[in-house]
Amino acid sequence: MGEALMSETVSEVLIPLAAVIGIAFSLAQWYLVSRVKVIGADPVQRARSERKNGLGDYLVEEEEAIDDQSVIDKCADIQKAISEGATSFLFTEYKYVGMFMTAFAVLIFLFLGSVEGFSTKSQPCTYTKDTMCKPALANALFSTVSFLLGAITSVVAGFFGMKIATYANARTTLEARKGVGKAFILAFRSGTVMGFLLAASGLLVLYVAINLFKIYYGDDWEGLFEAITGYGLGGSSMALFGRVGGGIYTKAADVGADLVGKVERNIPEDDPRNPAVIVDNVGDNVGDIAGMGSDLFGSYAESSCAALVVASISSFGNNHEFTAMCYPLLISSMGIIVCLLTTLVATDFFEIKSVKDIEPTLKKQLIISTALMTVGIAIVSLLALPSTFTIFDFGVQKEVKNWELFFCVSVGLWAGLIIGFITEYFTSNAYSPVQDVADSCRTGAATNVIFGLALGYKSVIIPIFAIALSIYISFSIAAMYGIAVAALGMLSTIATGLAIDAYGPISDNAGGIAEMAGMSHRIRERTDALDSAGNTTAAIGKGFAIGSAALVSLALFGAFVSRAAISSVDVLTPKVFIGLIVGAMLPYWFSAMTMKSVGSAALKMVEEVRRQFNTIPGLMEGTVRPDYASCVKISTDASIREMIPPGALVMLTPLIVGTFFGVETLSGVLAGALVSGVQIAISASNTGGAWDNAKKYIEAGASEYARSLGPKGSDAHKAAVIGDTVGDPLKDTSGPSLNILIKLMAVESLVFAPFFAVHGGILFKLF
Amino acid sequence: MGEALMSETVSEVLIPLAAVIGIAFSLAQWYLVSRVKVIGADPVQRARSERKNGLGDYLVEEEEAIDDQSVIDKCADIQKAISEGATSFLFTEYKYVGMFMTAFAVLIFLFLGSVEGFSTKSQPCTYTKDTMCKPALANALFSTVSFLLGAITSVVAGFFGMKIATYANARTTLEARKGVGKAFILAFRSGTVMGFLLAASGLLVLYVAINLFKIYYGDDWEGLFEAITGYGLGGSSMALFGRVGGGIYTKAADVGADLVGKVERNIPEDDPRNPAVIVDNVGDNVGDIAGMGSDLFGSYAESSCAALVVASISSFGNNHEFTAMCYPLLISSMGIIVCLLTTLVATDFFEIKSVKDIEPTLKKQLIISTALMTVGIAIVSLLALPSTFTIFDFGVQKEVKNWELFFCVSVGLWAGLIIGFITEYFTSNAYSPVQDVADSCRTGAATNVIFGLALGYKSVIIPIFAIALSIYISFSIAAMYGIAVAALGMLSTIATGLAIDAYGPISDNAGGIAEMAGMSHRIRERTDALDSAGNTTAAIGKGFAIGSAALVSLALFGAFVSRAAISSVDVLTPKVFIGLIVGAMLPYWFSAMTMKSVGSAALKMVEEVRRQFNTIPGLMEGTVRPDYASCVKISTDASIREMIPPGALVMLTPLIVGTFFGVETLSGVLAGALVSGVQIAISASNTGGAWDNAKKYIEAGASEYARSLGPKGSDAHKAAVIGDTVGDPLKDTSGPSLNILIKLMAVESLVFAPFFAVHGGILFKLF
Repeated sequence: MGEALMSETVSEVLIPLAAVIGIAFSLAQWYLVSRVKVIGADPVQRARSERKNGLGDYLVEEEEAIDDQSVIDKCADIQKAISEGATSFLFTEYKYVGMFMTAFAVLIFLFLGSVEGFSTKSQPCTYTKDTMCKPALANALFSTVSFLLGAITSVVAGFFGMKIATYANARTTLEARKGVGKAFILAFRSGTVMGFLLAASGLLVLYVAINLFKIYYGDDWEGLFEAITGYGLGGSSMALFGRVGGGIYTKAADVGADLVGKVERNIPEDDPRNPAVIVDNVGDNVGDIAGMGSDLFGSYAESSCAALVVASISSFGNNHEFTAMCYPLLISSMGIIVCLLTTLVATDFFEIKSVKDIEPTLKKQLIISTALMTVGIAIVSLLALPSTFTIFDFGVQKEVKNWELFFCVSVGLWAGLIIGFITEYFTSNAYSPVQDVADSCRTGAATNVIFGLALGYKSVIIPIFAIALSIYISFSIAAMYGIAVAALGMLSTIATGLAIDAYGPISDNAGGIAEMAGMSHRIRERTDALDSAGNTTAAIGKGFAIGSAALVSLALFGAFVSRAAISSVDVLTPKVFIGLIVGAMLPYWFSAMTMKSVGSAALKMVEEVRRQFNTIPGLMEGTVRPDYASCVKISTDASIREMIPPGALVMLTPLIVGTFFGVETLSGVLAGALVSGVQIAISASNTGGAWDNAKKYIEAGASEYARSLGPKGSDAHKAAVIGDTVGDPLKDTSGPSLNILIKLMAVESLVFAPFFAVHGGILFKLF
Repeated sequence: MGEALMSETVSEVLIPLAAVIGIAFSLAQWYLVSRVKVIGADPVQRARSERKNGLGDYLVEEEEAIDDQSVIDKCADIQKAISEGATSFLFTEYKYVGMFMTAFAVLIFLFLGSVEGFSTKSQPCTYTKDTMCKPALANALFSTVSFLLGAITSVVAGFFGMKIATYANARTTLEARKGVGKAFILAFRSGTVMGFLLAASGLLVLYVAINLFKIYYGDDWEGLFEAITGYGLGGSSMALFGRVGGGIYTKAADVGADLVGKVERNIPEDDPRNPAVIVDNVGDNVGDIAGMGSDLFGSYAESSCAALVVASISSFGNNHEFTAMCYPLLISSMGIIVCLLTTLVATDFFEIKSVKDIEPTLKKQLIISTALMTVGIAIVSLLALPSTFTIFDFGVQKEVKNWELFFCVSVGLWAGLIIGFITEYFTSNAYSPVQDVADSCRTGAATNVIFGLALGYKSVIIPIFAIALSIYISFSIAAMYGIAVAALGMLSTIATGLAIDAYGPISDNAGGIAEMAGMSHRIRERTDALDSAGNTTAAIGKGFAIGSAALVSLALFGAFVSRAAISSVDVLTPKVFIGLIVGAMLPYWFSAMTMKSVGSAALKMVEEVRRQFNTIPGLMEGTVRPDYASCVKISTDASIREMIPPGALVMLTPLIVGTFFGVETLSGVLAGALVSGVQIAISASNTGGAWDNAKKYIEAGASEYARSLGPKGSDAHKAAVIGDTVGDPLKDTSGPSLNILIKLMAVESLVFAPFFAVHGGILFKLF
């Protein structure tokens, strides 16, 4: 067996140190962003800010309207409106979700407490029968605490992400006056604030929680890490509501604004005369930023928890090797450092000069971070792991070597990169798939929709092979622990991934602000270029999120099976098979709910926007401001009301199935939802991304052929807008929510496993 | 154990007798259809036919243009063009598919022959080791023969179905002059010709093959029924190409015709000025009729084979109880008699008086046949089965009672009815789901598409629960045999199901002919009413096809697992899990191919139709005939070329996976494809059906609200047409092909199981 080269003390220092470095880096980036001033008309402040902005120090490519104070004022106004709208929505959302979460916390405590009849006596451990473990009641209590901790961290991560995004959007617009390079760096920097804050605080909270829980649990690591799984459940539950609520909010607004504005009234996107324009921009921040942040935080928390809980019943846990136990956290720590170095490449070592540099720069971020991280993983694996150790593999202990684990993590990391690039290929308008979709607009919206759906279906193939290969390799090497660390590998560069991801909506908003503030066509062109790259990177981010979700759920599923003491999940038993087929149906049920919600809310939005155009005199002429607030209210009401049923479907299914049908059927449900959900999630998000960029391809008219399809307002363009609108709920509501569905059901089953194992399957027991 | 009440001799007589009755009934119906004459302008013939038509004998509701000989002439012309087009396409298709099938037959022989190294020596049986069975080479030979037999029967069934449909369409149009009741009866009668011919000949060929093979095999029933499984493989392989090829053919034409005709030129559907109009009508017959016929024949053949192969290693086979062994065939025989009685209710006992009676009459057919069949199943179960017997259950023999098997078959039968009614609810415009979709057209095509997709997703829920419940019950009672007979139960009323199903395209064509022959608006309204009911029944038929496919594939999967000597398919092994996730991806890959094919072919069709409208002077004015042949060529070329890749994907996947990755991974692939494919298939076909009927809802303007959305040509109607066009490939190409995908991969695995068990998994053996 042997010991790890790195001592316990070193790892106790290194993990929090990496987290603190990450947070410090995040704050430093925030400071750099804040140096661009968006202030009101006070001339003294203005003079001071211009000095601080230090325009003379920059290599200014081109400057437009730099001196126009009224533009800055407008931008400041709009930014304020967006930021306030987003804050107000999130508070409303958190209020309702908070009630649900509190109720669910009580449920966790009652269910888990009842396992041993609320006894306060110590019990024999589940896996090492000869030692005594803490009572089930304690596990119930600590699971509840870590559940709440996960939920709160998720809220904080999402909220701060939204704050920095709304802080950065007008600044990006203003920087766009100086050139696309400056604007890009600002938007990307703002993304990194969110990326690092989230990665580092997720790690720090988890680390602190483990150390605090250890004070009570002492040597009972089995109980300790069981309780810690609540952290993943809390993170993902919050993420579900964030994604669904935010997704409905943003897409109701987007679809509503586009249908009346672009299609009926023929006014540009983000035109301030459109009553839904503010709510649309708010939506980008609550849906894409806060939702995505919570989502990836959830994945990160869950894969860490899955790895930890499996490790706790392997030789690391049995021999109390703390450094080896912390291997998942050390991988994440290394990830923060690697991402930090990678970020500097984009922001400090090079500067982009023209529009066509944007996408390559973002792609280089992914490649560099992956390459560096591979070395990082090798270092961590050699230092933190004993040369050989055993891993719990459904009842038996399997011997694994430390360099083998390096392969598990790396295969996940590289699979993530492959998924990212395939996603890019299918959603960027630089390649033939999207160009084919744009071409199909020649014959109208119907062929556009057919081609788009076919593209989404096709885009599933290679990512699934990549996921299957990483599952096979990591599963063969180290069973469920291998899968969990492969997921962690994919998420190890999360700080960079999130930065790229958050960059998209920030650029999108920047474009919106430019339009609303009445800035020139050239500025708008620059922000559009940023935004187009952002669409692709958003799709890449979703690809990562889905790929990691697949691995995470499988790892959680494995951990659940271990904990529920099932030794095989045999498809050839009726209990499992019906679970499998019903599980495969759940993503469809869930998508039906969320898409219908977006559709209904969009119908209401359309009616309100039409009403305003028809009844408010002077609105089309731009002499009167529309009633933005009534549109905000429609989106808010719809999303709060409509997020509950799909949320309840996901949260209650494992409880109902586990309680009434037992752990075998639940295993089937989890496997079915996983293998079916991942396909719909990938195809939905790529279809949507492709439609969006096909529309942008026609609008931008970058090639001679593209110009023959345009310009804006042509029949082909109108067909493209219809595709884009259909894609909105697919790519931003139902698609990305599905990866939370599969993760959440798995982690919930894991947390409730002791209850199901004891009290589950009532229905089969009765008959 | 005991013996069956019915002797071997009785069952030897009853089965062929039922088949012969079915065929005779089919011919009688054909004769009745043929009494409506569609003849040319020869006045003598004309006079004779009018006497024979015996107009005076009928209760004629209303007569229009009865005397107009030019109308009859036109109808005769059009019918001839459609029939010749369909025949010519099918011959071309069969030529190419014939080559593929021959090659595949050789493959079957070589693969299966190689199991024992082409030895001609007898070998110990697989399950009863103490007795000797025929050599593997004989099994290879007979499997190949039954494969070809299945393929030929499938071709014959599809071809004759097409023939009667094209024989009946103009007759239906002419009958529509006399009223909707007469037209309905004629169209429905024509459907029954196909239904009974297919059900009876499928049964007869299978029965004869078993008896002929028995001459060689003697008491080696294990080998005999293994070889018979080739029959199912042949039937389904043909069906795959029929569905895919026919689906691409018909939908390329339909989409192309609609996009230019309805959307751009604003001319009605089926207007003879549209160059794609003939190919569109031909398509209905080769896609919906021939394709559907082959598909359901395949399901029927496969479920029979699955039941027989499992029974052959159960007590029926071990004790050589021929009557009990023939239980699946006796169920089908009873089904023919029950359907015969049911048909008389619609055609002879009652006559529909008005448009609103059409749908209830068709629905009553389903209910009556199901109710009668339940009694029929009880009779067969009591007479043909010993009171107790054992069923092979993955290595062990499980004791089952005859009345328990009654439940297995009945649960399948009733699940089929439930699926049918749910399908109707989601696709008929008499209910709120389709009305909501129609309503969403108010805000344009985008919301229509969003609502339609959501509807399709939602429509999956209850059918999946119905399938899951029947699987649970029949699986618990009699393992895989239970599932196989449940599938047979669902298919036992296939003659009625197919009649209802074929009725749809016949009515659709009748409408087309009315339009092309320039008949009055009232006639067109009547055929539209028939057609609208036909859309719903087509969707119901697809529901049946998918539901039965799910059960059949599971039964085949179980038979494969038994034959490949696997005792469990554990999701928690990497080999199985990667199979599961890749299998779940295959339906997406397949759909991507087929949808893209339809899209590309439609683009070409659009260009050709546009070209003709733009370059042929006098075409829009109706003074010059368009060049129909060039459109026929586009559809033919596209479908022949494009059916190969998706066909190869389905046919080669089991071979590649089995050979290189082995039976465990293949099991995973089958389970994954099953649970994922069934969802997409249901949602695709319901989404498409709903869009089609939402469009018809607006066109018909049956309620005040519906009229506010219309009339034809309004914005809402244009949006509805876009939805309908998107739905075309979903509901008629990719959706229905998917149930063949899941069945075919399963039956192919079953046929090749001995090879995979011996030589499979090369890749894992190497590493």
